[in-house]
Amino acid sequence: MSNPIDLNDSSKRYFKSDNYAGIHPNLLAKITAVNIGHESSYGADKYTKYAELCFQEVFNREFRVAFTLNGTGTNVLALKIALKPHESVISANTAHINTNETGAPESVVGCKILTINTENGKITAEQIKSKYIEATAFGRHATHPKLVSITQCTEFGTVYDLLELKQIRKVCDELNLLLHIDGCRIYNAASFLNVDLGQIAVFTDFLSLGGTKLGAIMAESLLIFNSSFFDGLEYLHKNTLQLNSKNRFVASQYLGLFENNAQNKPLWLELAEHENKLAHLIGQELSNLGFKIIQKVESNHIFVEVGEKIAKLLESSGYCYIWTQNPFVVRFVVSFDNTESDVGDLITFIKNNI
Amino acid sequence: MSNPIDLNDSSKRYFKSDNYAGIHPNLLAKITAVNIGHESSYGADKYTKYAELCFQEVFNREFRVAFTLNGTGTNVLALKIALKPHESVISANTAHINTNETGAPESVVGCKILTINTENGKITAEQIKSKYIEATAFGRHATHPKLVSITQCTEFGTVYDLLELKQIRKVCDELNLLLHIDGCRIYNAASFLNVDLGQIAVFTDFLSLGGTKLGAIMAESLLIFNSSFFDGLEYLHKNTLQLNSKNRFVASQYLGLFENNAQNKPLWLELAEHENKLAHLIGQELSNLGFKIIQKVESNHIFVEVGEKIAKLLESSGYCYIWTQNPFVVRFVVSFDNTESDVGDLITFIKNNI
Amino acid sequence: MSNPIDLNDSSKRYFKSDNYAGIHPNLLAKITAVNIGHESSYGADKYTKYAELCFQEVFNREFRVAFTLNGTGTNVLALKIALKPHESVISANTAHINTNETGAPESVVGCKILTINTENGKITAEQIKSKYIEATAFGRHATHPKLVSITQCTEFGTVYDLLELKQIRKVCDELNLLLHIDGCRIYNAASFLNVDLGQIAVFTDFLSLGGTKLGAIMAESLLIFNSSFFDGLEYLHKNTLQLNSKNRFVASQYLGLFENNAQNKPLWLELAEHENKLAHLIGQELSNLGFKIIQKVESNHIFVEVGEKIAKLLESSGYCYIWTQNPFVVRFVVSFDNTESDVGDLITFIKNNI
Amino acid sequence: MSNPIDLNDSSKRYFKSDNYAGIHPNLLAKITAVNIGHESSYGADKYTKYAELCFQEVFNREFRVAFTLNGTGTNVLALKIALKPHESVISANTAHINTNETGAPESVVGCKILTINTENGKITAEQIKSKYIEATAFGRHATHPKLVSITQCTEFGTVYDLLELKQIRKVCDELNLLLHIDGCRIYNAASFLNVDLGQIAVFTDFLSLGGTKLGAIMAESLLIFNSSFFDGLEYLHKNTLQLNSKNRFVASQYLGLFENNAQNKPLWLELAEHENKLAHLIGQELSNLGFKIIQKVESNHIFVEVGEKIAKLLESSGYCYIWTQNPFVVRFVVSFDNTESDVGDLITFIKNNI
Repeated sequence: MSNPIDLNDSSKRYFKSDNYAGIHPNLLAKITAVNIGHESSYGADKYTKYAELCFQEVFNREFRVAFTLNGTGTNVLALKIALKPHESVISANTAHINTNETGAPESVVGCKILTINTENGKITAEQIKSKYIEATAFGRHATHPKLVSITQCTEFGTVYDLLELKQIRKVCDELNLLLHIDGCRIYNAASFLNVDLGQIAVFTDFLSLGGTKLGAIMAESLLIFNSSFFDGLEYLHKNTLQLNSKNRFVASQYLGLFENNAQNKPLWLELAEHENKLAHLIGQELSNLGFKIIQKVESNHIFVEVGEKIAKLLESSGYCYIWTQNPFVVRFVVSFDNTESDVGDLITFIKNNI
Repeated sequence: MSNPIDLNDSSKRYFKSDNYAGIHPNLLAKITAVNIGHESSYGADKYTKYAELCFQEVFNREFRVAFTLNGTGTNVLALKIALKPHESVISANTAHINTNETGAPESVVGCKILTINTENGKITAEQIKSKYIEATAFGRHATHPKLVSITQCTEFGTVYDLLELKQIRKVCDELNLLLHIDGCRIYNAASFLNVDLGQIAVFTDFLSLGGTKLGAIMAESLLIFNSSFFDGLEYLHKNTLQLNSKNRFVASQYLGLFENNAQNKPLWLELAEHENKLAHLIGQELSNLGFKIIQKVESNHIFVEVGEKIAKLLESSGYCYIWTQNPFVVRFVVSFDNTESDVGDLITFIKNNI
Repeated sequence: MSNPIDLNDSSKRYFKSDNYAGIHPNLLAKITAVNIGHESSYGADKYTKYAELCFQEVFNREFRVAFTLNGTGTNVLALKIALKPHESVISANTAHINTNETGAPESVVGCKILTINTENGKITAEQIKSKYIEATAFGRHATHPKLVSITQCTEFGTVYDLLELKQIRKVCDELNLLLHIDGCRIYNAASFLNVDLGQIAVFTDFLSLGGTKLGAIMAESLLIFNSSFFDGLEYLHKNTLQLNSKNRFVASQYLGLFENNAQNKPLWLELAEHENKLAHLIGQELSNLGFKIIQKVESNHIFVEVGEKIAKLLESSGYCYIWTQNPFVVRFVVSFDNTESDVGDLITFIKNNI
Repeated sequence: MSNPIDLNDSSKRYFKSDNYAGIHPNLLAKITAVNIGHESSYGADKYTKYAELCFQEVFNREFRVAFTLNGTGTNVLALKIALKPHESVISANTAHINTNETGAPESVVGCKILTINTENGKITAEQIKSKYIEATAFGRHATHPKLVSITQCTEFGTVYDLLELKQIRKVCDELNLLLHIDGCRIYNAASFLNVDLGQIAVFTDFLSLGGTKLGAIMAESLLIFNSSFFDGLEYLHKNTLQLNSKNRFVASQYLGLFENNAQNKPLWLELAEHENKLAHLIGQELSNLGFKIIQKVESNHIFVEVGEKIAKLLESSGYCYIWTQNPFVVRFVVSFDNTESDVGDLITFIKNNI
């Protein structure tokens, strides 16, 4: 057929979402490299085994991994493994599992999510304890909270520091609660905190370890650190629709992300540092222009109040999403492939329209 | 880390499963080609739109498409769209949804599957009617059958001809039943029948249109032809864990599969013809050697009775799976990248071990 | 066996819950009266048909009824009938379906509940609209609100007046939302408003019409007024575990509740008036004693701040539940069998302990 | 309103179902007797505690009990307690959970049921083992069988003897399978086997202990003997819609069933013996008349081939259900209130119509 769509209209790079970027060249190279002959399917291949060895080195704890296909599926798998029908989740009201998964936790797992209101995406150990006490007041007549889910970095780009994580872990232990970290952007958090991934993961029972938002495609994973939940995992993995038949193409992307560059730095860190740096730059430039930065810029997100006119111009020109109206706040997200030049374009565009 | 796994041990090509093959070079080229700049996420990109146009040309009916991530997820999405909590599915006992999806239809959709025993993977219009009558005898005290699911080609490689499909459609209309085709290998069926995909799809309400088993990676799709189920589809797509954020990399693989080669033949047809031809060849060679072919070789599967000794040798050498013991039947599946030389190797191996 | 429990220790009547009361003598008489010979099971008996005729007269709209077994099951059945997997509920945060059904809506139906914070148990048309707008901002990435559930009277004993109900219905129509009324105590609301049950039910698509809290045992019902949901109802009724085999014993209790007394007043009204009157009396007495009444006393509930000492004494003596600490608020609920003398005892007890 | 339905038309007693009978006078007397004052709700009352003591004496094992509201709910609760999302049930194809619960196990629990074909409702230890081996052949790609459910007596009135139960328990232990007994008519089985209930229950992890089919109303219970499943039970009980607020009226009926008469025989045994005896008599009379008895008459069911004319006459006159056509088989079920005179009427009716 003749194609009425101009596929040559090569897209510009904006700041709408890190889902707008493509695949990082190194990861595409990995896909190409592992495309040799036949391999066992469903994760029994040698590349998957190698990726598991990499994770073992990084996390240095006993674990199991389920390579998965998207972020919602990964979080839902964690909940399906962890919870019985009457058990519930405590999370921020702004958590992705609560606001942006089209009710999949309720629909596929059947669990209730008890939410804590937050302005910056983070919840505290004290809030968790209060929510637990409130939720258990009715005994059997209400769900029993069993798992806390936090996002690191949060949906607002803010980051839990190690002390906050330690306090959350402590209250979880005290109340017999499991901890899940939605780490779809954990790399940006680790870079900001200047820590290894393992220093964050040490606190958690379940970790959704992102891939897609940092330059991978159709590649996510769930790490299970709590050995009470190892049994049956391979069944639940498939039952929850997240098992990939040709898993070498998922695992190999993780190999790409964890491989060191010439400076002995893993690709994920190189990319996360780059994103964080550009985000910091955008924040500073906008601040210099007199705009109010709404959330601390601790990773690759910038939330900024810009007024209605500029907000609408920015969105209609494809630069970003309007996050809230009244006041008009826009959200910028830096992708791995954004450049300083992209930032320059953006700032120029804004200056021209103030 | 130093890698203890020898990744250079390039795998041979066997006949264990079409999931053992990698990605076809043309499809990898498509992934590479669309990896330019930023694109809208979640299927709002231009490549997804183009793939939809291709499907429109091929199927020539009103439809909606949900690009998905694996085969089980695709089938489950169809059932979740189609069924209310008390409605059930009629399928062959050997259907993938019944035997090989770890209970996902029951667990994620909540539906019961009513099965018809079959020797060759196919069910007939008469059997569907009998099952319907049996299932409705208890009225409200049993589930109400609402959807028939058939696999084309079947899990045994057999193919429904157009007359059989027409009869099944007729009984579905008569009994107010929906029809779903699990078409993870529909290409092999179309090639065998020497028809267009549209000539098969015309009978169905839902079509799981495969990708992965014919050289794609993490790329499946569900086509919905019954307009009663268009409403809410985009929500159910995400709710059922099958929405891909960077969908251009899924859609572009379909573009590769549907693109014509120099002989004006779409890639899917070229590959399916190739697979079917090799399967036919294997069948003939084995038959010539005196082995009993258990199922008609109508696509890329060969089921053959070989005796215990050879069956075990073949499996332990990686050539195929033992399907049943007593008698010992093995299953061969031809992948897109298998060659006549692979067939030669196989036959030689068997001859040497008779 | 010898019974170590003193069954002759006949219980006093307190104000803990209307679930603490037994069965009203008229309803027990009905159970006795219909205990003649054999009757068709599962609601095909003549008493069930008669109860349906009574409802027809009272509600004067086309409807279907499912007689059910407990309140949670009744509400859950309404949601299971009304909602697709991606659709959600809007309710008060204090609604029984949100706080006191052990997550059954999420677990059995799979739906998310979006809550509106409320001090008095009631939500307004404006709040529903705001919540709808907020909930739909993310489109397909969040659940789609489809049903509003309100409790009449509320869990705090407050009552929506007809104007408030009309406004809620209007906003539901505007936003294409269904309306469900949890009417486990609708009788008290109707008595307070001095209206017929039909004048409340006219606004709703689904009505959980209570029985147990007004002197029945194991007898609840769901009325469906929206004809879009008639189809399949008898299947969903059983599928949701709420079908009673010997339904004459449920239906006959409703016959008892709707039968007129000598003053041409149905029993439900006689009982609801009595409960409301005693509740009013308790409220007045406590107010006279200087205690702060926390919620308007519009039905059979009284929430009152009494200080820690008295709160604990009242609870430990079995009179009521402590509802909140800090400040100490207790809840009294009047049952059909409470008497003025019970109220006198209560007030004396409090006076003696001030 | 004037009642157009003749409620004085006192129904005759037939043999359609033991759900057609009403409540036994002794149980109604119990309901009346416990209708004194206020009692704690949700099973915290003294009558419920007393019923638990009775069960302790009868079953003489550690257990927990959930009093429930109908048979489907009771079975579903057992499955919801026992199974993880990927685990499945093995049962007879004729089991109530498979054929007569409108898909509630799949819809509410999400589990798959793997069925064994049976002519007489019973399955054997060998069949269980074969099914287990077949079901586990695909490993993670299929559900994992975890629980065997048998009905005692079966849906055909046949009874497992103690040796058969022992063998089933043995194979369950060997394969790490749980055992559930659907004992909605366990009393008839115990009477036939001339054993205590405890001698049957000793083999099982979960027992659905019937009430309604032996003269109770809205009264069922689930006994959990496997202590691995005690935790969380009180939550799952409510979450599965089976918790009764005024439970004294359920528990007291069990007290009635387990209370001894003047001959030191519990009521359940007196009733079950009576039913079995009448069933035996019907079987003999029909056999004498030359009809073919299809299933062994071991409890209160009689399946008999009678020819089309008589089958239709019997059904249209209300005596029984036609079970299958071609050949025409009818099912008679004896209720607790049927009499020898009812049997006489039936036989006379048949003789008059041969």
